[in-house]
Amino acid sequence: MASAQIVDVTARDGFQNIADWIPTDVKTAVLDQLVAAGVKRLEATSFVSPKAVPQLADASKIVNHMATRHPDVETHVLAPNLRGARDAVQAGAGRINYVISVSREHNRANINRTHEESLRDLASIIDALPKPEITVSLATVFGCPFAGRVPTADTVALAEKVASLGVRSVILADTIGVANPRQVRGVLRDFRAALPQLAVRLHLHDTHGMGLANMLAAMEEGFFAFETATGGLGGCPFAPGAAGNTATEDAVNMLHRMGIDTGINLAALLEVVKTLRENLAVPLPGRFSVARGFQEFCFYDV
Amino acid sequence: MASAQIVDVTARDGFQNIADWIPTDVKTAVLDQLVAAGVKRLEATSFVSPKAVPQLADASKIVNHMATRHPDVETHVLAPNLRGARDAVQAGAGRINYVISVSREHNRANINRTHEESLRDLASIIDALPKPEITVSLATVFGCPFAGRVPTADTVALAEKVASLGVRSVILADTIGVANPRQVRGVLRDFRAALPQLAVRLHLHDTHGMGLANMLAAMEEGFFAFETATGGLGGCPFAPGAAGNTATEDAVNMLHRMGIDTGINLAALLEVVKTLRENLAVPLPGRFSVARGFQEFCFYDV
Repeated sequence: MASAQIVDVTARDGFQNIADWIPTDVKTAVLDQLVAAGVKRLEATSFVSPKAVPQLADASKIVNHMATRHPDVETHVLAPNLRGARDAVQAGAGRINYVISVSREHNRANINRTHEESLRDLASIIDALPKPEITVSLATVFGCPFAGRVPTADTVALAEKVASLGVRSVILADTIGVANPRQVRGVLRDFRAALPQLAVRLHLHDTHGMGLANMLAAMEEGFFAFETATGGLGGCPFAPGAAGNTATEDAVNMLHRMGIDTGINLAALLEVVKTLRENLAVPLPGRFSVARGFQEFCFYDV
Repeated sequence: MASAQIVDVTARDGFQNIADWIPTDVKTAVLDQLVAAGVKRLEATSFVSPKAVPQLADASKIVNHMATRHPDVETHVLAPNLRGARDAVQAGAGRINYVISVSREHNRANINRTHEESLRDLASIIDALPKPEITVSLATVFGCPFAGRVPTADTVALAEKVASLGVRSVILADTIGVANPRQVRGVLRDFRAALPQLAVRLHLHDTHGMGLANMLAAMEEGFFAFETATGGLGGCPFAPGAAGNTATEDAVNMLHRMGIDTGINLAALLEVVKTLRENLAVPLPGRFSVARGFQEFCFYDV
C-alpha cells in the first residue's frame, strides 16, 4: 500500500500567530492527542525570541515534554539562529528547522537577513552543533508577496548552497498559498533533476483552496512528504478569516480515500480539532471537520 | 492555450436552499454580473414546485430575463418533470437539466421515484418537447448518503439507458462531496470507455476540500467542463457551515494560474461575490475571495 508522510505543524506554525496565550498544558494536551492519533512526526515549537513570538515562550518546556513523554516521535523545532538552535539542543531537540526565503526581499522582511547572512548563520549552527539533524525550509518557493514570481533556478541555487553545507533535507514552502498544481509539478521536476540527493517535504498553504490539489500534483511527481496543521491553523497572518495551512485532517481524509496510508487515525485526529475548537478563539478553516456531522449522517468507507 | 468550460450554477444550486427570499431583482443582478464577468454558460433556476422550493418561485421571470437580456448566454434550467419542463420551455428555456440519482435509494429520497419512473418521465419530456436540449445530471456518482459506495457500473448502466433515449450530454455529480482524485480518474476512465459519445460535465462539491483536487484529476483525464457556484454557495444542506459547491472564483483562479483559459474575468467575478455577500445572510465558503485582501497586498500575476 502506498503511504505518505505527514509532519503536523500545528504546535508551531499553527500556534505562533495566535495572540491570546495558549497555556502550556493545552499545548502539551494537543501534542499528546496528536501522538495518540498516530502522528509520528511533528513540529512542536520554535526557539525564537519571546519578544518576537510570545506565544512560543514555553519552547523548552514543550521540547522537554516531547523528549520525555514521546521519545519515539520525530520532533522538529524551528530555530532562527545559533542562539535558538543552542537553546533547542539544550532542551533536548534532535531535529532543527532553519528557514531561508528564496526571495531575497522576503528573507529581509521575514528575518532581516541577506542570503549570505542566512547561509553564514546556518553554517555556524552546523559547525557548533553537529548532532541535531538540520532541515532547511525554503520559503516563498512558489511566489513572494514582495517579489512576485520566484524563479525555480533561484530555489535550486539556494538549495545547492544549503546542500554544500551538509544539509540533506529541505522543505519547499508555498508561504502565501499561491502555488498551482502545474507549477508544483514543474518546480518539483526541476528541483529533483538538479538535486536528486536531497529529501524534500512540501509545505503547501491552502490560502486559495489549492492545498489538496497541490498535494495531489506533488504526489503525481513522486513526492509524498507534507507539512500540514490540524484544523488548518496558521499560515497567513495578513487576511483575517483566510485559510492558512492545509488542514491535517483534510489531507489525511483525501489520502486515505485514495488508498494512501498515513498511519494516522482520522477519528482520533478529529478529537484534536475538538480540543483546538474548545481552547482557541480563532476560526479553524479546515473543511472536513465542519462537514463531519454530514459525513456521519452519510457514510465513511467509500 | 488550453481552456476549460465553466457552467456557473449559483442562481440554481446556490440559491435553492437559502431560506430567506432573495428578491428577483437581486437574482437578475447576480446573473447580469456573472455575464458581465464573462460567464457564457450558467444554470439560472429550476422549475420545481414553489411549494417544494419557494426560493425559485420566480423561475419564469428569471428565464425571461436571460432570454431577453442575454440571448447569447447558454442558459440551463433544471426541471424535475414534464410539467416543469413545459413551463420552462414556455418561459423561453432552450436547455433543460433533468436529475436522476445513480443510487436508487437517493433517487427515492430526493425525488421519490424509482429509476424506471425517472426514465419514463425523461422519455415523456423528450417526446413532448423535442426542441430543448436535454442534459441529464447523474447524482451520487461518487458516493451516496444512503447506499454508501456507488459502483461505476451502475452509473454506466443508467447513462446507457439515458443515452438510448437520445440524450447526448450528462453531468456526473459528486452530490455530497466525497469523491477523491483517484476515484475521479477511475470513474471517468471507465465512463469514457463505455460511453465515448456522451459529452460530460463534472459537478464536484467541495464539502471535504477536495473540489479543486478532483477538478485537477478530471482535467488529467481530459475532462474540462465543470459546474461551480460563485462564493461556493449551495451544495449540502445538512451540515451548517460546511462547504458546498466548488467556488467559481476558486476554480477560475486555479485554472488561470495553470494557464488554462475560462473566458472569465476574475476581478469581475469577485464583484459577484461582493453582491452575494451584501445581499445574502449566508456564509460564502469560497477561499479565494476571503484571501483577496492578502492577494492584493501581495501580487497577482504569478
